[in-house]
Amino acid sequence: MKISARNVLKGKVKSITHGAVNSEVVVELPGGTEITSIITKNSVEKLGLKEGNEVYAVIKSTSVMLASD
Amino acid sequence: MKISARNVLKGKVKSITHGAVNSEVVVELPGGTEITSIITKNSVEKLGLKEGNEVYAVIKSTSVMLASD
Amino acid sequence: MKISARNVLKGKVKSITHGAVNSEVVVELPGGTEITSIITKNSVEKLGLKEGNEVYAVIKSTSVMLASD
Amino acid sequence: MKISARNVLKGKVKSITHGAVNSEVVVELPGGTEITSIITKNSVEKLGLKEGNEVYAVIKSTSVMLASD
Amino acid sequence: MKISARNVLKGKVKSITHGAVNSEVVVELPGGTEITSIITKNSVEKLGLKEGNEVYAVIKSTSVMLASD
Amino acid sequence: MKISARNVLKGKVKSITHGAVNSEVVVELPGGTEITSIITKNSVEKLGLKEGNEVYAVIKSTSVMLASD
Repeated sequence: MKISARNVLKGKVKSITHGAVNSEVVVELPGGTEITSIITKNSVEKLGLKEGNEVYAVIKSTSVMLASD
Repeated sequence: MKISARNVLKGKVKSITHGAVNSEVVVELPGGTEITSIITKNSVEKLGLKEGNEVYAVIKSTSVMLASD
Repeated sequence: MKISARNVLKGKVKSITHGAVNSEVVVELPGGTEITSIITKNSVEKLGLKEGNEVYAVIKSTSVMLASD
Repeated sequence: MKISARNVLKGKVKSITHGAVNSEVVVELPGGTEITSIITKNSVEKLGLKEGNEVYAVIKSTSVMLASD
Repeated sequence: MKISARNVLKGKVKSITHGAVNSEVVVELPGGTEITSIITKNSVEKLGLKEGNEVYAVIKSTSVMLASD
Repeated sequence: MKISARNVLKGKVKSITHGAVNSEVVVELPGGTEITSIITKNSVEKLGLKEGNEVYAVIKSTSVMLASD
């Protein structure tokens, strides 16, 4: 499936922390950058995510803000 | 300035493509992963962004979706 | 590819209107409801979208607000 | 009240599932397509939503991504 | 129409700047705080917005980030 | 740190309500307008937010919808 979101970043699931409704998933990108996603627990199950799994972080380019010192 | 957005990813400006109103900025993260941001031309000028500049990609964790094959 | 976004709605491309940078795509869902998406022209090309094509409208559940009279 | 969001889709509340803070509301659109919204419990009360109620799903066109097989 | 978005802020249209596709609308809130919205030109026409008009800035609480020095 | 988000609104923390995972922070802008943000409890701690603190509400202009009666 191809998606219109510009950023489809391949990485590995580093950790999954379940909350009451949502789960916090840390994805490690090549080179060590970590990116955190909060999705529902249902989605974690739907995707069958486990630590070490290959996963894509999907981010619309308009959701990426930029900042500079 | 500290911000509540969970992901503040340090990288370098790889390219800037100006459109009529918006600009497309590609940021290279350590390890080579590239992430694309679309912000207004005004914001590019406000931040004084140029190719090679150090920049942070700021992304709310709820804006990061996950996908798996 | 499975994605964490809760809403993956199957429909047909009804119309595509190209702007300078973005394109407006109207998707017709079963039953006639129409949903409009604004994505970049690049994404329209990347997905090879044409009128009549089958397409999925992908929407995070937290992006869906509700209103009542 | 008219709103700038492009998609104001009329439907019926099919189910409401309350969590600790948020509630998951499934809206059935004409033709049977279902769309899920996650809003706060306060908002469900503020709108007085009940199963069978008429409701509008309000979605910005820039929040609608597209995907194709 | 009541909407689930938590922030419905009453203000006055201070300025409207039309671009090719989008328009930039600056809204002045009581006390002088200004908030900028980018919506499509169609939406400006749909809402019949003019300088001096009363208008509501509608913002989901999850779209409001916080920052501190 | 300068950020590309167009709206960086200076105000005071009026109240903080902690939930299981998220916290609801009400910010009072000059002139009395109140704006509500939902961020994670971690972010409240990261920013060291307390009632009466000075804080910035950071909002992308594309996240601000407009509505009129």
